[in-house]
Amino acid sequence: MSDETKARSIIEPKVLKGFRDFLPAMEIPKKAITNKLSEHFSSYGFVPIDTPVLEYTEVLLGKGGGETDKQIFHFKDNGERDVALRFDLTVPFARFLAQHQSELALPFKRYHIDKVWRGENPQKGRYREFTQCDFDIVGVDNAEADFEILSMMDSSFKVMGVQDYQFCLAHRGLFNAFLSHLGVLEQSVEILRSVDKLRKIGEKEVLATLAQITFSEEKARSILAYITKDNPAEPFLTTLSRLSELAGGEEEHTQRMKTIYGYLKRAGIAEHFTLDPSITRGLDYYTGIVYETFLTSLPSFGSVCSGGRYNDLASLYTKERLPGVGSSIGLDRLLAALEELKSPIVGTARSSDVVILNTDAALFPDYDRIARSLRSQGLKVDVYLVQKKLAAQYKWAETNAIPFAILCTAEELEGQTLTLKNLTSRETIASLTIEEAALHIKKELF
Amino acid sequence: MSDETKARSIIEPKVLKGFRDFLPAMEIPKKAITNKLSEHFSSYGFVPIDTPVLEYTEVLLGKGGGETDKQIFHFKDNGERDVALRFDLTVPFARFLAQHQSELALPFKRYHIDKVWRGENPQKGRYREFTQCDFDIVGVDNAEADFEILSMMDSSFKVMGVQDYQFCLAHRGLFNAFLSHLGVLEQSVEILRSVDKLRKIGEKEVLATLAQITFSEEKARSILAYITKDNPAEPFLTTLSRLSELAGGEEEHTQRMKTIYGYLKRAGIAEHFTLDPSITRGLDYYTGIVYETFLTSLPSFGSVCSGGRYNDLASLYTKERLPGVGSSIGLDRLLAALEELKSPIVGTARSSDVVILNTDAALFPDYDRIARSLRSQGLKVDVYLVQKKLAAQYKWAETNAIPFAILCTAEELEGQTLTLKNLTSRETIASLTIEEAALHIKKELF
Repeated sequence: MSDETKARSIIEPKVLKGFRDFLPAMEIPKKAITNKLSEHFSSYGFVPIDTPVLEYTEVLLGKGGGETDKQIFHFKDNGERDVALRFDLTVPFARFLAQHQSELALPFKRYHIDKVWRGENPQKGRYREFTQCDFDIVGVDNAEADFEILSMMDSSFKVMGVQDYQFCLAHRGLFNAFLSHLGVLEQSVEILRSVDKLRKIGEKEVLATLAQITFSEEKARSILAYITKDNPAEPFLTTLSRLSELAGGEEEHTQRMKTIYGYLKRAGIAEHFTLDPSITRGLDYYTGIVYETFLTSLPSFGSVCSGGRYNDLASLYTKERLPGVGSSIGLDRLLAALEELKSPIVGTARSSDVVILNTDAALFPDYDRIARSLRSQGLKVDVYLVQKKLAAQYKWAETNAIPFAILCTAEELEGQTLTLKNLTSRETIASLTIEEAALHIKKELF
Repeated sequence: MSDETKARSIIEPKVLKGFRDFLPAMEIPKKAITNKLSEHFSSYGFVPIDTPVLEYTEVLLGKGGGETDKQIFHFKDNGERDVALRFDLTVPFARFLAQHQSELALPFKRYHIDKVWRGENPQKGRYREFTQCDFDIVGVDNAEADFEILSMMDSSFKVMGVQDYQFCLAHRGLFNAFLSHLGVLEQSVEILRSVDKLRKIGEKEVLATLAQITFSEEKARSILAYITKDNPAEPFLTTLSRLSELAGGEEEHTQRMKTIYGYLKRAGIAEHFTLDPSITRGLDYYTGIVYETFLTSLPSFGSVCSGGRYNDLASLYTKERLPGVGSSIGLDRLLAALEELKSPIVGTARSSDVVILNTDAALFPDYDRIARSLRSQGLKVDVYLVQKKLAAQYKWAETNAIPFAILCTAEELEGQTLTLKNLTSRETIASLTIEEAALHIKKELF
């Protein structure tokens, strides 16, 4: 191809609307967080699974289709099959459970951290391609499983180094008992959807909608009274008593909540949990506890971790009843929030701990030898691969946020020493052995 | 929904042809390997990036389209854009480089481990969805960069615990010099494609094709002589001299190969590298070293890690010349090979190190407390979440390959002790403290 033809045929390098690249400065912390979470989930005996990105559209949407339809990427493949990109990790998990029942032992605890796709209109902090981090316990319906999910949520936020978070709990069963007591259980789906919008559209709008749904202003006001707390600091068990009363007295759901709260207390983590009856989660399939998580210093970001108990997850694919409880961290939204909060978690994207500068190409095998030695001592080490002016090499180190540089001349190598330079403080220490340099770097960085 | 309606509307849980689920037994080792590789690449200063799964078809295929066309999943999205699932990680990387040039400092060393999709017909060990693991150095064309990729390939295999691998190197530039000397350089693309099939179709077929391409049986025999080694154990530099001679004498490519080999020697890793002129890699864009990797005990699996030097990767998207060298590990094929070899790497899929058995639901908060303590000591710990018959709990532990169980009665808890059971040997040790139990488990497992 002539240069001219080439120039003409250049394609503009761009990504689709709502999609994005992750440069190292963002991908390094993202990977660090997913690794920490994976390791943490494993410490609870949760196991990873993987499912295809592409599935039969019918399997993902059910035979009906409906609202979600417009939001998903679906098409006919070369074999004329109607296929779609998964829009969450829950539906593929339900299909997975039904398909592999005989190979799995219940209770089954799995986690899955991966991308999902939705064709909705991109907004700030919302993308068409985003990463979810799901963890579920399937095959058991009790307070112990509910507690374990909540407990792991709490420790996950600690492991990620996130502070100032609050888990807001409610109980779908208790809410339904209340609606039943009020005589409006049949409208529960519409009521749930309306209540779910409280944070977005405010009390007045919700009240108006509820009155339309229940044909009664009084009932609308009762529902609003149930879902709002006059005193945000009201103790957990006080709120619970009040809600039980509104629902017509104590029953199994109240008991479950009490037991869960008792476990949280015993584990010493109750302080991060409030009972917040405005949390309902729009989705029909929840039957027990439901929860959302807010960053107290950034409430406008919305919930960064949500979920609840469902008692028949895989009913689309199997007649076996598979109760479960699970949670999903919206990793991209959480990352965006942490960036906004200038959290140190998203600010440590150095490509390596130290770069060995290239001042004499003939010494390259020695640079490589020193690098190997430092790596074996647990450091991330670059060798600058070209003999260039030092200024250019320092600039490269700066762009990559590398904190240390090593220089060594033929003479120094002869004497088995090197010079270490702290690229932040500009401090230089000469005549170090490799081991001394490693110790010094580790002392400063870790 | 009535049970009857439900029964009728059940959807068969299945995945698309050429796609598959990863159950924990396979996903645990896969994650372990990708984590090890990521950490290892990082120790060389390679940084992770991420790109969208979905891109403009034109961006992925170029304006021409062509052969790949039929192999990719592409469709019109809701905005009538022609979009496609990426079929490798190289093309998106080229686009990424062109798009973010100003934000990156060269040399740029990146790795990317993720899925790609091809619509080709599935065969044994070949899937429509598979994971690639790519690592490249861009922005520098010298022996040092070539060496660093080869060196990292070697250490990657060591890190993965793979033994018996052999890297087969060749040099595209040297081969072209030979073809030029023979007067058939113009047919190089067809010749490369034909030679690339040597392992598959054998010498006789290749000879016939080469004769057709070059219109000369003599030239075909010369090419065959160049690409075959009579003595497979021929020393690297002897083969290099012979090839240089056939190409009309020493030139820059011979020099480059000598320098690379010198570095491999100095680093003490030369034994895993052979010069194998039959390696050509079918793809046009290679210009320097090329390589494939074979498991010596499973050569039939083909190459599990391949790549080479290209000197103009992003020319589709930018006028700037971006030379590079890179490599790609076919992770799924490698995993399949390791499974076939019964490697211990793919045989360690236990969900946790120890399960605390549930013999008295009232003691659950204590089980949870013991579990937390053991986790903080670095162990993976399950609490069995339901009070069931012990036989059922043991069976569950067995299915999940959990090696240890902890039992404790109210009495033991009073005395701050517990009983540890090795589920393989059936050995039981009573009256241990939590710390003693942790030490015992660690001693056995790590």
